[in-house]
Amino acid sequence: MTPELPSVNGLAAPLLKRLVHEAGRLRIAVSRDPSGVTVIDAGIGVPGSIAAGLQIAEVCLGGLGEVRLAALAREGWPTWLHVRSSQPVLACLASQYAGWSLAASKEETGGKKFFALGSGPARALACKEPLFGELGYRDRSDSGALVLEVDRPPPPVVLEKVLRDCALQPVGLGIVLTPTASLAGTTQVVARVLEVALHRAHALGFALHDVLEGAACAPLPGVGADTLQAMARTNDAILYGGQVHLTVAGDADAARELALKLPSENSRDYGRSFGELFEAAGYDFYKLDGALFAPAEVWVSHMPSGRTWHAGSLRMSLLRELWQTP
Amino acid sequence: MTPELPSVNGLAAPLLKRLVHEAGRLRIAVSRDPSGVTVIDAGIGVPGSIAAGLQIAEVCLGGLGEVRLAALAREGWPTWLHVRSSQPVLACLASQYAGWSLAASKEETGGKKFFALGSGPARALACKEPLFGELGYRDRSDSGALVLEVDRPPPPVVLEKVLRDCALQPVGLGIVLTPTASLAGTTQVVARVLEVALHRAHALGFALHDVLEGAACAPLPGVGADTLQAMARTNDAILYGGQVHLTVAGDADAARELALKLPSENSRDYGRSFGELFEAAGYDFYKLDGALFAPAEVWVSHMPSGRTWHAGSLRMSLLRELWQTP
Amino acid sequence: MTPELPSVNGLAAPLLKRLVHEAGRLRIAVSRDPSGVTVIDAGIGVPGSIAAGLQIAEVCLGGLGEVRLAALAREGWPTWLHVRSSQPVLACLASQYAGWSLAASKEETGGKKFFALGSGPARALACKEPLFGELGYRDRSDSGALVLEVDRPPPPVVLEKVLRDCALQPVGLGIVLTPTASLAGTTQVVARVLEVALHRAHALGFALHDVLEGAACAPLPGVGADTLQAMARTNDAILYGGQVHLTVAGDADAARELALKLPSENSRDYGRSFGELFEAAGYDFYKLDGALFAPAEVWVSHMPSGRTWHAGSLRMSLLRELWQTP
Repeated sequence: MTPELPSVNGLAAPLLKRLVHEAGRLRIAVSRDPSGVTVIDAGIGVPGSIAAGLQIAEVCLGGLGEVRLAALAREGWPTWLHVRSSQPVLACLASQYAGWSLAASKEETGGKKFFALGSGPARALACKEPLFGELGYRDRSDSGALVLEVDRPPPPVVLEKVLRDCALQPVGLGIVLTPTASLAGTTQVVARVLEVALHRAHALGFALHDVLEGAACAPLPGVGADTLQAMARTNDAILYGGQVHLTVAGDADAARELALKLPSENSRDYGRSFGELFEAAGYDFYKLDGALFAPAEVWVSHMPSGRTWHAGSLRMSLLRELWQTP
Repeated sequence: MTPELPSVNGLAAPLLKRLVHEAGRLRIAVSRDPSGVTVIDAGIGVPGSIAAGLQIAEVCLGGLGEVRLAALAREGWPTWLHVRSSQPVLACLASQYAGWSLAASKEETGGKKFFALGSGPARALACKEPLFGELGYRDRSDSGALVLEVDRPPPPVVLEKVLRDCALQPVGLGIVLTPTASLAGTTQVVARVLEVALHRAHALGFALHDVLEGAACAPLPGVGADTLQAMARTNDAILYGGQVHLTVAGDADAARELALKLPSENSRDYGRSFGELFEAAGYDFYKLDGALFAPAEVWVSHMPSGRTWHAGSLRMSLLRELWQTP
Repeated sequence: MTPELPSVNGLAAPLLKRLVHEAGRLRIAVSRDPSGVTVIDAGIGVPGSIAAGLQIAEVCLGGLGEVRLAALAREGWPTWLHVRSSQPVLACLASQYAGWSLAASKEETGGKKFFALGSGPARALACKEPLFGELGYRDRSDSGALVLEVDRPPPPVVLEKVLRDCALQPVGLGIVLTPTASLAGTTQVVARVLEVALHRAHALGFALHDVLEGAACAPLPGVGADTLQAMARTNDAILYGGQVHLTVAGDADAARELALKLPSENSRDYGRSFGELFEAAGYDFYKLDGALFAPAEVWVSHMPSGRTWHAGSLRMSLLRELWQTP
């Protein structure tokens, strides 16, 4: 019997069910939209929680990764997330990556424009992104889970589009809403530290099917006072506090090059906070240097040669300066 | 659907059941008293275990917190507990806090006097403490779990009182007995590091409903040779080795003040061991300075402002001196 | 009710079932040999995974220990395993220790000679090793799990011997195959850090029934390029990176002596890598100094006296030199 590729939506289904079942203690709210889609509010009209964020992060990883909070102070910061997966490409890129563009015009919504980047396993049912061609992965499932980092629920027209593209019945779809400036939102974004490394590895041209294992950690900041600050902190947590260990196969030179080029210190903007850079770029995310969106410190272990390369380092003094009031 | 308050006894019930089921490997003993109450001896007539202590600590937290042992040496000590809860006030104050005074006179017991401070979720059924008025929480459940830090089983008259006050049938009540000077006892007391912070926050007048999240750690000492030494160590573990991260809402000045006033360094007695102080106070716990009963190092993150304050520091050199034989 | 000794095979059965159930995501392969024995290939014809190695390690511990990967960099290395057990003697010596010699001659196999040291709970059904007399433990179960650190499946004659010695039907036996130079293999060997300490304690004459608790950690190296390098690394991980905390009963002097004599620094060969020593010994494992096979740093807590002794220290600079390419 040859190992088969797992179903990220099939594995996420019991995790989503648990989220619904534990809504009270997680301080989240569960409802059904008129069509029957399950909508989980994890921080818009309710406080939400770090515990909800941890569970949502595991839904995002399609049940193929573990997200844990270590309440063990390190490097002068009290709380750290760690993430690991023995299927990091499927978990992070086929599922967790926020890559599905979901937009609706004023005409379509009958009100305000809507835009969100969908993340989570339902992406692998729709396969609307070119990335899926490269991954060679398409999931099939009668249930799907989608996570949206938004401040308001998606309009019906967006839900209809998701249902259509995923070929799901409304009863099979669960949507999780997590504003960045919420406990669950900040938690599930920082839990993307491993995904950020894989996304950057992909941008550097590393062969994704050669990534066998991934483990990572990052400090969990206090929630920002507003979306902008929350966004800055969750990014800085990864860029200056993220540590990643990848195990890869393939060519040894490619592994070495990956290790050296992966850390955020390779960016021309390294050393400046996301908030400062974002403002300088006129709040246009796409003007920022892509090389900055990477973990601070990296180890790459290459199986065929038995070698491990190490590059980058933490900049915790910058994070403490940004996050702590003296 | 608005989030409802969870039932600490309802959530603890499967944890208590698991404790009973795994009695053999946990080296604990389960029996029924003549009335039908389940009595779990975790260290009086049996050795008990750290594993039992971890599970008992989660029973104490009413199923609303996680207690983990990290076998990763830090700060020169090999073993640390970490605790977290996204419902820290209910978990720690409505459930885990040892606040229910259970006494029986010689006349009542027909033998020796009995006194214990009950902790765990059954407290929230009885609600005999003024604290419950402030918490605005009362649990309803046909099962209840109570933890007693004692060296002998409670007399029937105490069990009858508990059953009456909790409005429970004997078959619905489980009592866990953990002497301080036992593996399970020491473990479950050190797991109170987060509770100690919340209790102190309450004493400082901080509004409890503003505490949203709590995470904490403390070193797990070797079990003391007798009750007095075990009591000293479990206290010192928190006072000089405890680190706590709270996330709060409400007023920013109140959050800042909480951070600054919370650490044990605010006590006039800071720097002296519990054992030394307790002896100097003639073994009268109530003569000790309440400000000392607090974690060593604290971070308070204030959600509305996005600020985090940090105060206090570890005194691991003192703990190693107290706990290690050169 | 007195605590009874748990059944290591009974507790391992659901863990083995889970391994089979999750084969796809763990990148392992499950088959049945002609007689009906379940054979799990965790790294010969399939890549396997760290996740599989963690689960296999818990099977090895007979369900009496926890093995966790912490993706939290420490001491300049990104990934660490930690292991704990409140039944360390049964978990590590009656189950996990690779002590059952399974050999078949060319005549018996009809091909190449076969040799492996069986580990895992099935050992406690067969009880072929003198160690079981000292442990005073024999398991009874209609299911058994055996782990073999091999590069090819065992021949039928070996499976027949195992079935006969364990008094198992083929359908009741599960065999897990993990080459050292594989993700699962390297993981499950480093997870023996606590077992190595107990084995050494036994060699030093410490009374095993006095060991109550064990917790340990060690860095997880990148997989070696071949069996020899993988074997060197997994040993070095423990000898120079292993930290162990034991809690013991019995005589205080024996506990103190255990602490002082246990660390690998007591060996005449301390400071040299396993690879170098193994080569110098002509690749004869039994010519190496047994005192080296021990953790680097040790704490022993003695319950009756409340004392803790500490000895040894990490040599992470050596490990980084051996494992990392500059």
